[in-house]
Amino acid sequence: MSLPQRVKIVEVGPRDGLQNEKQVVPTAIKIELIERLAAAGLPAVEATSFVSPKWVPQMGDNSAVLAGLRRRPGVAYPVLTPNLKGFDAAVEAGATEVAIFGAASEAFSQKNINCSIAESLKRFEPVVSAATALDIKVRGYVSCVVGCPYEGAVAPGKVAEVARILADMGCYEISLGDTIGVGNPASVSRMLEACAGVVPVARLAGHFHDTYGMAVANIYAALQFGVAVFDSSVAGLGGCPYAKGASGNVASEDVVYLLQGLGIETGIDLAALAGIGDWISSAIGRPNGAKAGRALCARDS
Amino acid sequence: MSLPQRVKIVEVGPRDGLQNEKQVVPTAIKIELIERLAAAGLPAVEATSFVSPKWVPQMGDNSAVLAGLRRRPGVAYPVLTPNLKGFDAAVEAGATEVAIFGAASEAFSQKNINCSIAESLKRFEPVVSAATALDIKVRGYVSCVVGCPYEGAVAPGKVAEVARILADMGCYEISLGDTIGVGNPASVSRMLEACAGVVPVARLAGHFHDTYGMAVANIYAALQFGVAVFDSSVAGLGGCPYAKGASGNVASEDVVYLLQGLGIETGIDLAALAGIGDWISSAIGRPNGAKAGRALCARDS
Repeated sequence: MSLPQRVKIVEVGPRDGLQNEKQVVPTAIKIELIERLAAAGLPAVEATSFVSPKWVPQMGDNSAVLAGLRRRPGVAYPVLTPNLKGFDAAVEAGATEVAIFGAASEAFSQKNINCSIAESLKRFEPVVSAATALDIKVRGYVSCVVGCPYEGAVAPGKVAEVARILADMGCYEISLGDTIGVGNPASVSRMLEACAGVVPVARLAGHFHDTYGMAVANIYAALQFGVAVFDSSVAGLGGCPYAKGASGNVASEDVVYLLQGLGIETGIDLAALAGIGDWISSAIGRPNGAKAGRALCARDS
Repeated sequence: MSLPQRVKIVEVGPRDGLQNEKQVVPTAIKIELIERLAAAGLPAVEATSFVSPKWVPQMGDNSAVLAGLRRRPGVAYPVLTPNLKGFDAAVEAGATEVAIFGAASEAFSQKNINCSIAESLKRFEPVVSAATALDIKVRGYVSCVVGCPYEGAVAPGKVAEVARILADMGCYEISLGDTIGVGNPASVSRMLEACAGVVPVARLAGHFHDTYGMAVANIYAALQFGVAVFDSSVAGLGGCPYAKGASGNVASEDVVYLLQGLGIETGIDLAALAGIGDWISSAIGRPNGAKAGRALCARDS
């Protein structure tokens, strides 16, 4: 069984993670978080989103975050842009990479963004066209790739269809998100198999939530499938709004601990990452959701 | 890749789990816990240990636990017996299965039980002989099978050697314990490969701690290796005394969620198990360490 030799981690804590925090996090903390993550070797740090602040007040300081950020050469700072208005604002604020998102579940799309999957994808076309014209890279997210809080199990073929449309539209990478964390290595492998039939594995990324404690095992299964890009969140920042009291994004520390153990290169300094997780957890007053992070910090203290 | 069709879970919460709780748990709660676990379909529930109460005060009510227990036919209730004195007391109290334990790390053996590995194994010989004479089954544990808090990495060959000695002595099953939870799917697979060279895989069990968040992935790797017996602890009961603030045993709920997802039979009612985890966590005033347990309880409430 051959695993990838190198894996890219896309750190989503500052956006996907913090977005679920109730208390608004100061802009300076967000900027420090992003800068420290990049300094620890994260090759991509999702910085913020350009969604209406009415919907996501936590990201209301999006322009200020981008403006204040000292960028490291070679590090990508994608931002979420749901529509052309958001895209224009993002570009104005200095974004050089954006991300768009579709759901693989019709019910989730309706309840989450008030339109059908097809309509949501249609809305992204002008965003991708505008980005392409400006030479801005676009990453695509698919949510609910294994299960949906409203529909239950999601058919792998449906995920593959959305992934294909986003890839055809021009997304350089498709991040497949188990939004409610119900996947397991078997259901994740079936989903990946369907997607790999329509999009090259090298362009697929895994985005796992640890709601049921399966995320690290799912990443191991995805690695065995050849996936070499994973989204994760320092300290496991972010909850899952669809499952009370449940954990959200898989912790970056745990993922990097896994990859190190498997002899897979990431370019990330795990000790530095664990320190960042410890710091941000204290800074925003939440428990550190990274098991490897907690264990490493306890060992070193 | 073929996985086992059926897996046996050995529930270690009432012993390995509670033993690390500082506050003494009332005997009635322990008995209720064991009985509810057996009723939920757990085929083996480690009930208590017959170690000196000076060393483990939490297990000082061992005889009372066994005496008070209403046993279900077909369920095993092993108890830990470190020496002949403990074994005799266990038999007197009605034990019908016992467990003995050796370390794969010399330093751990010296610091933990004040003797060399060889000496500790020697002490178990009369226990196994006495058990055999009484037709009492003996399970063997090996600790520190991947890493040791004092020595660091442990050689797979050393683990295999201890496993072989315990198997040759008469242990029907050898539980391989990653006591400090440092293992990953690669190091665990290497260790299993060494052990499978000297003991049939059908007689090996995996005992993983989730200190670094790797336990479920390690179980998935062990399943791929053909291991079909795993130890786990309801609600993730038990801490790891060698890593401050770190989690201990992998939660039974998370393991059963994984196995169900993989289509592997366990005979366990997951909803009932999650309810037990919720109850015992409240009863002893600790957070529920099972992610699947928390998510299932939140969903149903």
